[in-house]
Amino acid sequence: MPRYVAKVQYDGSRYHGYQIQKNGTSIQERIEHALLLIAKRSPNNPIKIVGSGRTDAGVHALGQVIHFDFPASIPATNLLRALNSILAKDIRIVQCKQIESDFHARYDAIGKSYRYRVDIQRFPDPFKRQFTTHHGYPFKIERIQAGLAYLKGEHDFTSFCSTKTDKQNKVRNLYQIEANIDSHNQELVFDFRGNGFLYNMIRIIVGTSLQIGDGLKQPEEMQRLLQVKDRNQAGPTAPPQGLYLMHVEYKEDPFDSE
Amino acid sequence: MPRYVAKVQYDGSRYHGYQIQKNGTSIQERIEHALLLIAKRSPNNPIKIVGSGRTDAGVHALGQVIHFDFPASIPATNLLRALNSILAKDIRIVQCKQIESDFHARYDAIGKSYRYRVDIQRFPDPFKRQFTTHHGYPFKIERIQAGLAYLKGEHDFTSFCSTKTDKQNKVRNLYQIEANIDSHNQELVFDFRGNGFLYNMIRIIVGTSLQIGDGLKQPEEMQRLLQVKDRNQAGPTAPPQGLYLMHVEYKEDPFDSE
Repeated sequence: MPRYVAKVQYDGSRYHGYQIQKNGTSIQERIEHALLLIAKRSPNNPIKIVGSGRTDAGVHALGQVIHFDFPASIPATNLLRALNSILAKDIRIVQCKQIESDFHARYDAIGKSYRYRVDIQRFPDPFKRQFTTHHGYPFKIERIQAGLAYLKGEHDFTSFCSTKTDKQNKVRNLYQIEANIDSHNQELVFDFRGNGFLYNMIRIIVGTSLQIGDGLKQPEEMQRLLQVKDRNQAGPTAPPQGLYLMHVEYKEDPFDSE
Repeated sequence: MPRYVAKVQYDGSRYHGYQIQKNGTSIQERIEHALLLIAKRSPNNPIKIVGSGRTDAGVHALGQVIHFDFPASIPATNLLRALNSILAKDIRIVQCKQIESDFHARYDAIGKSYRYRVDIQRFPDPFKRQFTTHHGYPFKIERIQAGLAYLKGEHDFTSFCSTKTDKQNKVRNLYQIEANIDSHNQELVFDFRGNGFLYNMIRIIVGTSLQIGDGLKQPEEMQRLLQVKDRNQAGPTAPPQGLYLMHVEYKEDPFDSE
């Protein structure tokens, strides 16, 4: 069976996350359902998709990558159009390509980029409630930036990982970690790029950073948190709706034209 | 009782329009309910708000204007904060001011501005499905602009008015009517300013304009439509979710500091 790779965008607001859940609709379930309809197969004979990783309920994606084996060899552009005509408007396949049968969306990923958007208007923007987190208090961006600087590079991020994780190794390498004010949109924007991210890692870093910006914690606290390896000493987990999976990196870009 | 004027923004996606309906929640109902809670009054003794005009189900507002008489004289900034703390996040009071008791949000309005946003990306943006209408076909902006030019100024807009209207006089004056490409956001944006708008008028003008852009109608058709005064000969009514009430004009800006 030919293997396909696809880039997926979704507004996660209506979904219980990327991965199939017992209770609630997931992105994965909707895409697998659409593939089944295109292949005219029975649900007893499912077509599984593999994503680069999970995203939580309410989290969005601009560049999620998936792969799947399809029972017929059809042009990737036709497959893309067929999927988009079936899927709800809050999930879009933006690229699709046939690929070598040993490509793996999760195992082959060597890095990921995430963005976290904070609405910093005095009153929360009614049009951004599902796309940002609102933070109406005055804060100091310089304090946030000073705190984040401690997290750059390779560290044990245990303090910034949900205790619900099943991962043993909590060492990750953050290549890029930035916070900037987007004054045009009145947003505080966090950008992250790293070789991998732990469960809730970005949301805990953002929650802690907002406390540092507000003056509730000192920027140097970030360094101490890396050392103590204790989730309970970090700040709260920021809400999911500000978080976006932006890009998944592979050794070779799977969407490069051959 | 002191009279207050307020500027309201709302994401209309979840509502059955501005005006109170028998079946379904409206913006008006939510604001009147919040005022009742602040005044600690019983629902038998309602506080009525008056808006500059209605907006349909799914239509948004960045600058809707309302007035109401409140049973106590409290600082407008306190009223604004109290309202925002009660209202759902998709309705925001952005300005509030005490005003002369003869100010009337509807009767005193001398003009309105509306915007209509069309997502012109090849595939509909999953994050814009409630905030734009998608139009994925190639079109010529020059044809749309040429058609709109016929509508500028004072005309009988019967062909661009829903037959469900109860208005007799269909003459309106359009001061401004523009269509431009916002290439950064990949949108086609229509801007309208006039002394008043008929029921579905903008949505029918947009629906007809898209047909002109696609080549299904000639730009000159707009002139003919003004003459024939027949709704059935115009194009379809474009969907509500691209439409925004941007601004309501009064002789004197009610939000000018005294």
